[in-house]
Amino acid sequence: MAREAIVDVEGESDFSLENLPYGVFRLRSDARAQIGVAIGAYVLKLAACAEGGLFDECHAEVFSAAAARRVFGQPTLNAFMELGRPAWTEARRAIQTALDKHGSGFALLREAFASGEANRFLCRAEDVVMLLPVHIGDYTDFYASLQHASNLGAMMRGPGNELMPNWRHLPVAYHGRASSIVVSGTDVRRPRGQLRPDEADEPVYAPSRLLDLELEVGVLIARDSKRGEPVPIGQARDYLFGLVLVNDWSARDVQKWEYQPLGPFNAKNFATTLSPWVVTLEALEPHRVAAPAQQPPVLSYLDEGEQRSTLDIALRVLLNDTVVSRTNFRYLYWTLEQMVVHHTSTGCNLRCGDLLASGTISGPEPSSYGSLIELCWRGTRDIVLDDGSTRKFLLDGDAVSLRGRAGARGRYVGFGRCDGRILPATEEGVAAAAAAAAAAGSKS
Amino acid sequence: MAREAIVDVEGESDFSLENLPYGVFRLRSDARAQIGVAIGAYVLKLAACAEGGLFDECHAEVFSAAAARRVFGQPTLNAFMELGRPAWTEARRAIQTALDKHGSGFALLREAFASGEANRFLCRAEDVVMLLPVHIGDYTDFYASLQHASNLGAMMRGPGNELMPNWRHLPVAYHGRASSIVVSGTDVRRPRGQLRPDEADEPVYAPSRLLDLELEVGVLIARDSKRGEPVPIGQARDYLFGLVLVNDWSARDVQKWEYQPLGPFNAKNFATTLSPWVVTLEALEPHRVAAPAQQPPVLSYLDEGEQRSTLDIALRVLLNDTVVSRTNFRYLYWTLEQMVVHHTSTGCNLRCGDLLASGTISGPEPSSYGSLIELCWRGTRDIVLDDGSTRKFLLDGDAVSLRGRAGARGRYVGFGRCDGRILPATEEGVAAAAAAAAAAGSKS
Repeated sequence: MAREAIVDVEGESDFSLENLPYGVFRLRSDARAQIGVAIGAYVLKLAACAEGGLFDECHAEVFSAAAARRVFGQPTLNAFMELGRPAWTEARRAIQTALDKHGSGFALLREAFASGEANRFLCRAEDVVMLLPVHIGDYTDFYASLQHASNLGAMMRGPGNELMPNWRHLPVAYHGRASSIVVSGTDVRRPRGQLRPDEADEPVYAPSRLLDLELEVGVLIARDSKRGEPVPIGQARDYLFGLVLVNDWSARDVQKWEYQPLGPFNAKNFATTLSPWVVTLEALEPHRVAAPAQQPPVLSYLDEGEQRSTLDIALRVLLNDTVVSRTNFRYLYWTLEQMVVHHTSTGCNLRCGDLLASGTISGPEPSSYGSLIELCWRGTRDIVLDDGSTRKFLLDGDAVSLRGRAGARGRYVGFGRCDGRILPATEEGVAAAAAAAAAAGSKS
Repeated sequence: MAREAIVDVEGESDFSLENLPYGVFRLRSDARAQIGVAIGAYVLKLAACAEGGLFDECHAEVFSAAAARRVFGQPTLNAFMELGRPAWTEARRAIQTALDKHGSGFALLREAFASGEANRFLCRAEDVVMLLPVHIGDYTDFYASLQHASNLGAMMRGPGNELMPNWRHLPVAYHGRASSIVVSGTDVRRPRGQLRPDEADEPVYAPSRLLDLELEVGVLIARDSKRGEPVPIGQARDYLFGLVLVNDWSARDVQKWEYQPLGPFNAKNFATTLSPWVVTLEALEPHRVAAPAQQPPVLSYLDEGEQRSTLDIALRVLLNDTVVSRTNFRYLYWTLEQMVVHHTSTGCNLRCGDLLASGTISGPEPSSYGSLIELCWRGTRDIVLDDGSTRKFLLDGDAVSLRGRAGARGRYVGFGRCDGRILPATEEGVAAAAAAAAAAGSKS
């Protein structure tokens, strides 16, 4: 039976006592960034809790009270992540005990509740603004869904030729853009870009007409690896701190024109949206399930043997409140551990805070595809919304929300929301083009 | 006539009084990172100079003494770069006056010289260890040389089909890896990677046999741009602080197997080497020359009109002290300004410290190609070194040095060295594979 938390947690909440995701927030009334843990409709303020003694009973060799004050006093999670799994486990145990209604941990919180002063340690989620949870050095985007790669390949190269020869041998990936990663709730401006309409011989610089979403899950890397030293498969899990939802917005018309031969660039570098709460691998551990079998067998450096497994996380895409896709993290062909190993296989070093995203997650059914280009099958089918309107790609004003959770009612381990709304392409774009034309002199 | 510096500067030195590049160093005896300026075989210590009053006579509204103490007291150039061109110009003027033998600036330095205490402000280059000059948020690599793109295209797709349809319409680029950027002098371990030998049906994980160099020039971005707001072509030059040499090491066999459809990843992310001294655009300004004409004309957002120009910088590649390539920055088809504009064209934001590299710079003659794969024409020709040995790709122990400079004897504006030596692939790679095989159980 689910344990009961010290605050009311609705059965449908993503943030049960089993979850306890970490995030960075500021109070609406305060510019200061703080680390928090989500519990129901509340946020536990970890800096105040550390100062108040929440971690005083932890094993000091593993996670000392001084370390807790230091790492939870930061404006990002990086310092906490660097401490490693024993510290994370100890911190989680202490926080879970403190928030357990029938537990005995952190007397100060119980006293604060009794005297009506709980706001010293807790605030309401509606009173905070969420920020990016970590400093991200590098962002890498994989292409780890067999169905997604097959769908895109079928569209580009026709049936029978869906997958490139390398796809089943290595987790294909490319480097993404870190500067334009934004937190859920940030509006996304429809990009202008260079593209060549199907009916045209020459390219134009114009607003993208084929603006898409991509449903992905990202993992935040906990620690630095050494340059020149590949991470062995048996050690890869030590590098995984927690997961976030990722919307890798994509301008398909820009992508189609630009991507040969070096891959997508401007089609994706204008914005990438993250969910703000980092769901830890520890919270997800009870939801570990078998991963898809790999055929042909992978090379030994990627071979997980008996350790191979994945996580059962139900995922949804909402477009203006209509669920347009239901899929699952477990469909991914390549695991997070294999991504870490392959990323470092030539000696590339990972750093604490790096983001590795899965690539679009598509399941076997058309209703489980994780992007609009698949759901509308390259514009040949309508996506029907609850209000009766139809879509192929995103229109100005459209609101996209990604959701994901493991577990069952009352004990959900979920991500909250990963939201973004499309703003129309700006007049500034027009102005910039005009300014450029003017600067180019009288010839235009 | 060249001005004379307060210290002896050899005629062949890259670091004349006309240059004054910025870098970050530490004394061999001291772990602290400091900002310096190279002059001949010496390094001017800018934090000490700022404290000593070198910038006291600057226009305070443009570059105050307090600002100088703040930005030159940092361990990277980012804070100085963010101040913008008027401050850079003022700082350069003050430093040049102080170092001018017949000038009157910075009396304290002259007094220190007279009393034999110049080491308060100057140290010998041989007594310092150079560090990365900036904190690099994102690294982008372009593909801006027409000859290089044509050469690679001819090898991959055959003559007559060298260039992709997009190539003359936009500066093709991909996102690189920031974590593995290292400073000149750092050894580079030959990567193991997944590759499929030409004679094989199945891929292997093995040391790269086709390890290559790429001669590139990179620009460091001085300021943040706003997400969602493309930089107009007329403003692009304001984002350029200075240039460095870049060696974009490439494992061609890994690249060939992995790069479809998302571009190079592990083939390049194991190491990228930068020269340590940042040569400012201001120092290079006298060497501005016409850029190659672009045909067909570019779209208006990329059209530089009368402002279009580039820089005359002679470049060389040395392999074990043999010059194997002589080329020039001016051969690039796309300018740095066009790279900035196209990078931000969909709204991607640049940040101060970002590195934009040119891609391999190849000139029209075979002797001016900037990579070994071009110089050996995909393994069909030998590259002959001065010791009589031949190369196609890099061997263990090979030392690569990139050089570049503008100007003439006594007034060179040069980069110094961009060096790296190839270490053999480690036994650790073998050990990791063995560990993975062991972890995978008895089946292997």
